[in-house]
Amino acid sequence: MSDYRKLDAYLQDNLEQNLEELKKYVSQPSISAQNIGLKECAALVKVMLEKRGFKAEIMATDGAPVVFAERKGKSDKTLLIYNHYDVQPPEPLELWESPPFEPEIRNGKMYGRGVSDDKSHLTARLYAIDAILANEGDLPCNIKFIIEGEEETASVHLHDFISKNLDRLKADACIWEFGGVDHRDVPMQYLGLRGICYVELSVESLGTDVHSGLGGSILPNAAWRLTWALNSLKGVDERILIPGFYDDVIPPSDRDRELMGNLPDLENEYKTRFGVKNFIKGIKGGLELKIEEVFTPTCTICGLTSGYQGPGSKTVQPAFASAKVDFRLVPNQKPQDILKKLRAHLDTEGFGDVKIDFLGGEPAARTDPGDPFIKLIVDTATEIYESPMELVPMIGGSGPNYPFVHDLGLPVATMGHGHPDTKAHAPNENIRLDLYMKHARHMMRLIKEFGK
Amino acid sequence: MSDYRKLDAYLQDNLEQNLEELKKYVSQPSISAQNIGLKECAALVKVMLEKRGFKAEIMATDGAPVVFAERKGKSDKTLLIYNHYDVQPPEPLELWESPPFEPEIRNGKMYGRGVSDDKSHLTARLYAIDAILANEGDLPCNIKFIIEGEEETASVHLHDFISKNLDRLKADACIWEFGGVDHRDVPMQYLGLRGICYVELSVESLGTDVHSGLGGSILPNAAWRLTWALNSLKGVDERILIPGFYDDVIPPSDRDRELMGNLPDLENEYKTRFGVKNFIKGIKGGLELKIEEVFTPTCTICGLTSGYQGPGSKTVQPAFASAKVDFRLVPNQKPQDILKKLRAHLDTEGFGDVKIDFLGGEPAARTDPGDPFIKLIVDTATEIYESPMELVPMIGGSGPNYPFVHDLGLPVATMGHGHPDTKAHAPNENIRLDLYMKHARHMMRLIKEFGK
Repeated sequence: MSDYRKLDAYLQDNLEQNLEELKKYVSQPSISAQNIGLKECAALVKVMLEKRGFKAEIMATDGAPVVFAERKGKSDKTLLIYNHYDVQPPEPLELWESPPFEPEIRNGKMYGRGVSDDKSHLTARLYAIDAILANEGDLPCNIKFIIEGEEETASVHLHDFISKNLDRLKADACIWEFGGVDHRDVPMQYLGLRGICYVELSVESLGTDVHSGLGGSILPNAAWRLTWALNSLKGVDERILIPGFYDDVIPPSDRDRELMGNLPDLENEYKTRFGVKNFIKGIKGGLELKIEEVFTPTCTICGLTSGYQGPGSKTVQPAFASAKVDFRLVPNQKPQDILKKLRAHLDTEGFGDVKIDFLGGEPAARTDPGDPFIKLIVDTATEIYESPMELVPMIGGSGPNYPFVHDLGLPVATMGHGHPDTKAHAPNENIRLDLYMKHARHMMRLIKEFGK
Repeated sequence: MSDYRKLDAYLQDNLEQNLEELKKYVSQPSISAQNIGLKECAALVKVMLEKRGFKAEIMATDGAPVVFAERKGKSDKTLLIYNHYDVQPPEPLELWESPPFEPEIRNGKMYGRGVSDDKSHLTARLYAIDAILANEGDLPCNIKFIIEGEEETASVHLHDFISKNLDRLKADACIWEFGGVDHRDVPMQYLGLRGICYVELSVESLGTDVHSGLGGSILPNAAWRLTWALNSLKGVDERILIPGFYDDVIPPSDRDRELMGNLPDLENEYKTRFGVKNFIKGIKGGLELKIEEVFTPTCTICGLTSGYQGPGSKTVQPAFASAKVDFRLVPNQKPQDILKKLRAHLDTEGFGDVKIDFLGGEPAARTDPGDPFIKLIVDTATEIYESPMELVPMIGGSGPNYPFVHDLGLPVATMGHGHPDTKAHAPNENIRLDLYMKHARHMMRLIKEFGK
């Protein structure tokens, strides 16, 4: 590998300025679930890219706009980088130690909503590009950015956007929005993401809330109807009860089991981090935990709301109740198929009164562990990290990698500075600045080597 | 009966001034569930009573204070009047046509939180007293007021207060906080109230919320635990599944069934008012509806809360979930016994992780339909209302009548100006001013005749 001392020195010398840019980016709220600040944030991203000589464009979708940008390089090869500028809602606000949209550095970490997921991943990558441009004046390969604003709401319009822009998005390989190290600080290569099918289930049982002294005996209660409907979806043993739900599930291959087996056992780490004594389903640990964690589909209640939720008691029978539910899917389950089976199940079980709103979804997708692009990522990591990058055939999270893998036909690789206590989607989300620098150095090397 | 023309004339001539007093009373928020404005409201009530020459005292309890007041009259007989100065929370605010704590008169109704339940019942009674005092300078009997501030949160400390003040509260009969007419404008005498046992069930499954992509497969979900626990309490057929729950239930007597049978059939009225096509449990109407409505105990979810409840989707697995649940009890069920059975049931079903907070309760209590005091109320109503008052052996709502009936040994009678569209506990709570005047005229007569 080449000598990257000059470029590394640039990164060492310009960190403060880059972190200021990151702070400014995190300070701009961009909550897709609540449609807050998306346009403003897209405009900010466009400026950030133009500053690096990219031709950037804000492209409309039926939802939040996508920022697309490209800059030609010396070779014919094209690297596509996927990021998102939207963030999760910051609630519950009272659990934040510093305000979510006023990023703050404490003890070598930066805190703020979206700082890890995924704003710093964009700035670290721009930082790597800055280093190359400052030293060489040109990029070693073509680089394209696709930066969407709906990743945290299941990327509802991204698949359609990609389908309509296959030519512009043409590339040889794709870098994913995130990546990171595990609890041992070993960099991980995540080769697949589960799919997702996110729905809101709601019941309206009455024209108005009613005094529970009257309603309880004779009128339908929306909260009860919802409770019973939810209960029909999954048993206490965690088995999902929707007929046909597991039909298309492909079990992990021997190679998958082998790769999973190589990964460290996280049993105790998880128990400490999440404050639990036992896992569900009687899972003990070892390979069983690793496989269950990612190769089984799930049905998760993400939220429940009905009636009176304040302090003390209110004797009211609610007319309305709703639940947010996400299904994590494994190959080859398809969101639309799950949706159809869910509707049929609710109808069969007598829950025709339960309305389903589809809030987004994508099937699972995976990249071949043997792809040369994966090898390049692993190789360029060796100089940066103390341990070699390890391959993870699939992770539990979801993302819109399906159209990148299947529509654009790209190998999709992860690299980044996430860490186990990064608290993505939770209060006090943070990044470790040491890992941030490592990701920038890794990315700089990857771009250089990829362009050769 | 005597000639009450002069006193009626007083009531006709002084309405505006009395309604101003009511508006001032409603404008003072006094939300017991949220501990808002209770002391201020108690102080206001004390002043209102002192204005009528009552010796009033604000008496501490372990919760909101009780306002106790008395004024001697000509006879030795004592009438005890029970009211409460607290109100239900006003949420959901967006459904109010005028602000809940800015009472407004529109089309012969006054709107505001607590205007019906129960602030206007106090002012109408004071209004009747004003008429008597203005004309006669003295009361015909002793009158005592007990006005509490926790009725809307299950009167948690009232029973204890009564037990400790049996002598001061000594009386010959008791007027209850509410009363009213049915959908035909026929005044109703409610002779019994169901009991209540109000609990909050909560689950804390994790030390922190977690990304649902990780949590869903391996970690316990508080919302699921709560859903399954709730489901174990009541089946889709509305049968409560807690072992022993129905053990102490006394079915309605033949006299109860006869009195219930005399009441009008509310099937269509309810269906229109609440916007439902069918009642639960396959109830058709007629006597079955009337009996089911009040003589069966219930288990009602009043509120559900967990995880993300905002717009759109958030992929989070909640660490915490809670439900507000009220059980309406019939004779001879006891709240403490139900609580014990609930705990045992949850433990047996594997829901030891579900915490129970008892938010208050009282057993059911009833007054004998043949009591002479009941006859007096019915008789004094004849001059005011177009139809004679009808006897209802029991209603579905609850209240702290148990210590009045069983500790103080009093007949408890209802009279008031509630009406079917009064929207107690709901947005746009209101009273009809024509019924308000009728209640004041009825109360004036009752006090006069009772004193004889």
